[in-house]
Amino acid sequence: MHVADLTEEQLLALIVPELPLGSSTLLGPGDDAAIVAAPDGRFVVTTDVLVEDRHFRRAWSSGEDVGRRAAVQNLADVAAMGAVPTSLVVTLAVPGELDVAWVVGLARGLAAVCGPLGVGVVGGDLSGSPLVVVSVAAHGDLQGRPPVLRSGARVGDVVAHAGVLGRSAAGLALVDRAAAGGTAGPGDDDVSHDGLVTAYLRPTSPLPAGPEAARAGATAMLDVSDGLLRDAGRMARASGVRLDLHADAFAADVTELANAALAVGADPWAWVLGGGEDHGLLATFGPDAVVPASFRVIGRVESRAADDPAVTVDAVAPAVGPGWDHFAGRPD
Amino acid sequence: MHVADLTEEQLLALIVPELPLGSSTLLGPGDDAAIVAAPDGRFVVTTDVLVEDRHFRRAWSSGEDVGRRAAVQNLADVAAMGAVPTSLVVTLAVPGELDVAWVVGLARGLAAVCGPLGVGVVGGDLSGSPLVVVSVAAHGDLQGRPPVLRSGARVGDVVAHAGVLGRSAAGLALVDRAAAGGTAGPGDDDVSHDGLVTAYLRPTSPLPAGPEAARAGATAMLDVSDGLLRDAGRMARASGVRLDLHADAFAADVTELANAALAVGADPWAWVLGGGEDHGLLATFGPDAVVPASFRVIGRVESRAADDPAVTVDAVAPAVGPGWDHFAGRPD
Repeated sequence: MHVADLTEEQLLALIVPELPLGSSTLLGPGDDAAIVAAPDGRFVVTTDVLVEDRHFRRAWSSGEDVGRRAAVQNLADVAAMGAVPTSLVVTLAVPGELDVAWVVGLARGLAAVCGPLGVGVVGGDLSGSPLVVVSVAAHGDLQGRPPVLRSGARVGDVVAHAGVLGRSAAGLALVDRAAAGGTAGPGDDDVSHDGLVTAYLRPTSPLPAGPEAARAGATAMLDVSDGLLRDAGRMARASGVRLDLHADAFAADVTELANAALAVGADPWAWVLGGGEDHGLLATFGPDAVVPASFRVIGRVESRAADDPAVTVDAVAPAVGPGWDHFAGRPD
Repeated sequence: MHVADLTEEQLLALIVPELPLGSSTLLGPGDDAAIVAAPDGRFVVTTDVLVEDRHFRRAWSSGEDVGRRAAVQNLADVAAMGAVPTSLVVTLAVPGELDVAWVVGLARGLAAVCGPLGVGVVGGDLSGSPLVVVSVAAHGDLQGRPPVLRSGARVGDVVAHAGVLGRSAAGLALVDRAAAGGTAGPGDDDVSHDGLVTAYLRPTSPLPAGPEAARAGATAMLDVSDGLLRDAGRMARASGVRLDLHADAFAADVTELANAALAVGADPWAWVLGGGEDHGLLATFGPDAVVPASFRVIGRVESRAADDPAVTVDAVAPAVGPGWDHFAGRPD
């Protein structure tokens, strides 16, 4: 059954029951607007869009994959403020020839991420379109705390990261290689490489680590969506400091990706330091803070002279690329 | 200059200064998420998407037109809850060959609607795409009042409407006719017909009438985006009543559209009762309420027997169509 075989109301009747109501939802879908609790007297809001053939390909990603990604990348931005996610709304533009099952899968993907967190999918809009475009706006509650901005890193702070590094980029490279008709490497009969493809198709984010960092007194935080070096550079520039990362801290990440890198002829360091869409959290903590267990220390905040790079690795400007630009398109 | 000539950051540097910060904005664009005040301890949220060649055509609509529409249709949903709009976020997917001026115009269109209301455009996301897709999520504050739902209409209430009826549909018909190479009618040297084309390209909504209705004790309310009969039917079904509209109440609307209807061979009653995208507000008030001056009474809430239609005009089931389905596509 295709989308074009149903009216909007019939399609909604299949989707809405899949969506979690959420523990902060005071009025769910069905009226002109939803109502969400904001006990803090403020709410955090962020938005991101996924466009077919730019952010995902239908040949590789199921509806559930895309739904999970759309939820995770938005909720990670909420968490990166130190907020607890409460709700999201979604607009979905889809071709008439799309299988209804794909759309229901997308709803299930949103639900799979949101449901366990008590996040409600509280509203949406459907439209026809020549290609799939999924736009999400997500909200969160700061629980009375000040937000953790990217601009608060101070000289002497430790730099810490929660989540994974380079796994999504590695997964993308493996999928690309498989799609190009090559094998993923000698002896491999699939491209999964211990979950790397899944890490690309269904990234996860250590969402509870955001509020944990805020409670622990994080001085700065952001979501690592465009690559560690690039996002660290943003934090460094916003804070007027230099982030010096310690190469030793990434040895395990690089080792873990070594086989996949060999298989596709890539540099695992480029994945770890430059790969996008892992949706970890980068944060800084004062020298006396107790860094939460969800984070590992990866460097130190240093002063930045006029000619200094914003980010260094072991005090040297890194040789690998600066990550990628969603807008200019990614290198696939 | 085309979008593809700029990086995402360069394009943002042109757009962001155009956007109003808003009087409820505690933290604007630039970090992972924005922060908006919710003094009521709740917030209202709604979302809508506009897809090129389905909701608008670039040959007819400027970037500013589309920006205005995107803002108005979302803020109207906020107002229809009885809330005061506070903020919106927007995702914009655009082709690389699009003029940068079109995108800046879209930002100006959002600003033209939001700025005077104190509504902030607090966040966004940009992506490339083969066609323009604009998605907005809008938020509002209920100021301590209960929301005005569509389900609250009670037998004996008066039915009232704020805003215009049929003007957007008339404008669309005129634009269609002009695009098809016909003239808009004998003696016309343009298709403007006293602002009807503008009413289609840049619909307005009586946004302050939403909170006014709530303060006056409106029992039910919704945004009229899909045609009066269709949206009245939604209210009637949600409330378990019949809305009886009084034909006399629409005489002036029909008269005003008579010339344009003659020019394109249309029935002005179909525009007034069935035309979409006027974004007026339909509300019901108890028999003793003082209906705000922004509304005019157009009917009465009656009981509904099992076989009754949800909406009648002078107690008879109306002969014109039920409006249109955004998803199945509109009749252009």
